[in-house]
Amino acid sequence: MTWDGCAVVRERLLDDGVSCKTAHVTDTNERGAGMAADIAEQPEVYARLLEPARLDTIAQVAQVIAERAPQHVVFTARGTSDHAALYGTYLAEIRLGLAAGLASPSAMTLYKARPDLSHALVVGVSQSGGSPDLTEVLKVARESGALTLAVTNNPDSTLARTAELSIDVAAGHERAVAATKTYTAELLALLLLVESIRGSLQEERKALDELPALAAKALEGNGAGRLAGRYRFAARMVTTGRGYAYPSAREAALKLMETSYLPALAFSGADLLHGPLAMTQPDVPVLAIVGDGPGGRSMREVLSRLREQRADVVVVGPAGDLPVPAVDERLAPLLEILPLQQMALALALARGEDPDAPRGLKKVTATM
Amino acid sequence: MTWDGCAVVRERLLDDGVSCKTAHVTDTNERGAGMAADIAEQPEVYARLLEPARLDTIAQVAQVIAERAPQHVVFTARGTSDHAALYGTYLAEIRLGLAAGLASPSAMTLYKARPDLSHALVVGVSQSGGSPDLTEVLKVARESGALTLAVTNNPDSTLARTAELSIDVAAGHERAVAATKTYTAELLALLLLVESIRGSLQEERKALDELPALAAKALEGNGAGRLAGRYRFAARMVTTGRGYAYPSAREAALKLMETSYLPALAFSGADLLHGPLAMTQPDVPVLAIVGDGPGGRSMREVLSRLREQRADVVVVGPAGDLPVPAVDERLAPLLEILPLQQMALALALARGEDPDAPRGLKKVTATM
Repeated sequence: MTWDGCAVVRERLLDDGVSCKTAHVTDTNERGAGMAADIAEQPEVYARLLEPARLDTIAQVAQVIAERAPQHVVFTARGTSDHAALYGTYLAEIRLGLAAGLASPSAMTLYKARPDLSHALVVGVSQSGGSPDLTEVLKVARESGALTLAVTNNPDSTLARTAELSIDVAAGHERAVAATKTYTAELLALLLLVESIRGSLQEERKALDELPALAAKALEGNGAGRLAGRYRFAARMVTTGRGYAYPSAREAALKLMETSYLPALAFSGADLLHGPLAMTQPDVPVLAIVGDGPGGRSMREVLSRLREQRADVVVVGPAGDLPVPAVDERLAPLLEILPLQQMALALALARGEDPDAPRGLKKVTATM
Repeated sequence: MTWDGCAVVRERLLDDGVSCKTAHVTDTNERGAGMAADIAEQPEVYARLLEPARLDTIAQVAQVIAERAPQHVVFTARGTSDHAALYGTYLAEIRLGLAAGLASPSAMTLYKARPDLSHALVVGVSQSGGSPDLTEVLKVARESGALTLAVTNNPDSTLARTAELSIDVAAGHERAVAATKTYTAELLALLLLVESIRGSLQEERKALDELPALAAKALEGNGAGRLAGRYRFAARMVTTGRGYAYPSAREAALKLMETSYLPALAFSGADLLHGPLAMTQPDVPVLAIVGDGPGGRSMREVLSRLREQRADVVVVGPAGDLPVPAVDERLAPLLEILPLQQMALALALARGEDPDAPRGLKKVTATM
């Protein structure tokens, strides 16, 4: 997709209910042009990752993992990539029957923990591959005998060089500071890896091959712009989802915070019922991600409780206010985040912010 | 500690900077009396858990775990107990050298994942022990050959009966819906268990035996009431900490949300630098938990960046604005949450809310 395509997408985003000087922009130097281009490129990114050569590379990594037969999977990541890693834990548990969890880098980097990871697959997920703390985790893991894998958008990065195995998510240069296409590329790379490990890639091919077109369809709706108008003066927001949709709820909240400085709280539907439900007063907008499957069905009680509280609920999903094509919930995270990224962009523009260069945010953050 | 003691504590909480009709309350039916009593009881709860008979029971559980020598630890919990479980993951990784993570119950309950947990210790943490989803996780884990442990405040609960091993945190009846003393009792029980497993309980005894007195000291400060006055009109809040202090930051945020309906966002110091820092405008109060050790030292850069952004930062810790006795960071979560619980209570009262019975919140929440 070209920069012109991006301008068209931005028109669609902004033509409905949002009064914004920067609508109909074609100049790439305009606010948000980079993020709009990154978002629009996602169908193409999916198509690229699904090319036979890329699939072969992933299959080779999968074969090594299958042969080494790890007993559990430890993910390590930060920020947006942490949500991709969370998706990875669901895939590993549900599709591979392997216990999976997210490691806190600080245990190893600050407190010098040296856990025995000799039976583990340790996966670092990072768009830049430049975070020293994640590299340190992979280094420690490799020394303890773990099988290590880096999933990054930079195959020459320190993280990729530190790990025994590496997968390039091939999302191309990301223009905006807020990650969008690198996030979904990480999701798809993890999905392809897991399906390869369990040897079900061929039977999944039909559904996978439809993803680029479905992603384009998800981006075509213009509900995001309308929602951004509705949330123009919101002081806070709650996002929620269960199961595979929970990482999407987390990522949507982070994107809103990064680009629009809107405090957005993400809760799994189950945790929301355990306490923070009290906070969902009528003036708090709730974005509920409701898929077509077990996770979505389990949200029914959450939605009913939210309605009792007279919360302002917008449902994202196949039968939702913000529609997304219906797919297996396992694939849904690749689609449902797309209109939410568009919404974060449109809201940032409506609020006069620059989503390409948010205040106080750097592309690579070095923490140990 | 008696109800009279509780009333005294509430006077201390409220006598400084908070204009509130319910100050100097002695009637146990008054708003917040239950939560105040629960908070005040924590030194006594610590002393009870440290009694020889309790330690012996924990040592027996520890011996079984040491003999079975699990290769990794999987925690499962919800809400407040999830933060105790997070503390448990740090302890397991740093003190036991075991990989540890938090399981998402929905993988097993909604998507019927059946991960091989035959080399795992699976720990369910729950004050009530009544959550069906956690019970289901322990049941599935036990069937797959895992060593299972329930850490609850109800030794007769379904969770405790489902697990092979069980530890009673012995916090007594919790009066308020918002959990306080059951949270810290869970923390201490996990700490005692881990130190028992590694055989270092005796050498830690001196530091542990000081905890009840230090907890009483942490509760004596009246900074919490002053802070509550300062935050009376805050529209949102950010809490942050690294390493062992991160669970405290998460729990403080949840307590503020549950009792004062204040949207509070918790970030590890490292994640805050990765993105949401942009959100810390001057009108957003930041509570930073800064211990005396590696986690606290690593917060220096975070504090410096926050000051650059002119954020309103209050430091909780030995050298902080809200002082807490100095201890090893591993023990600090048992102390630093105490004034933050007091603050959540005082703020709820100042805002005219009833922290004993928050809107929309039940003590036991059944989700699958």
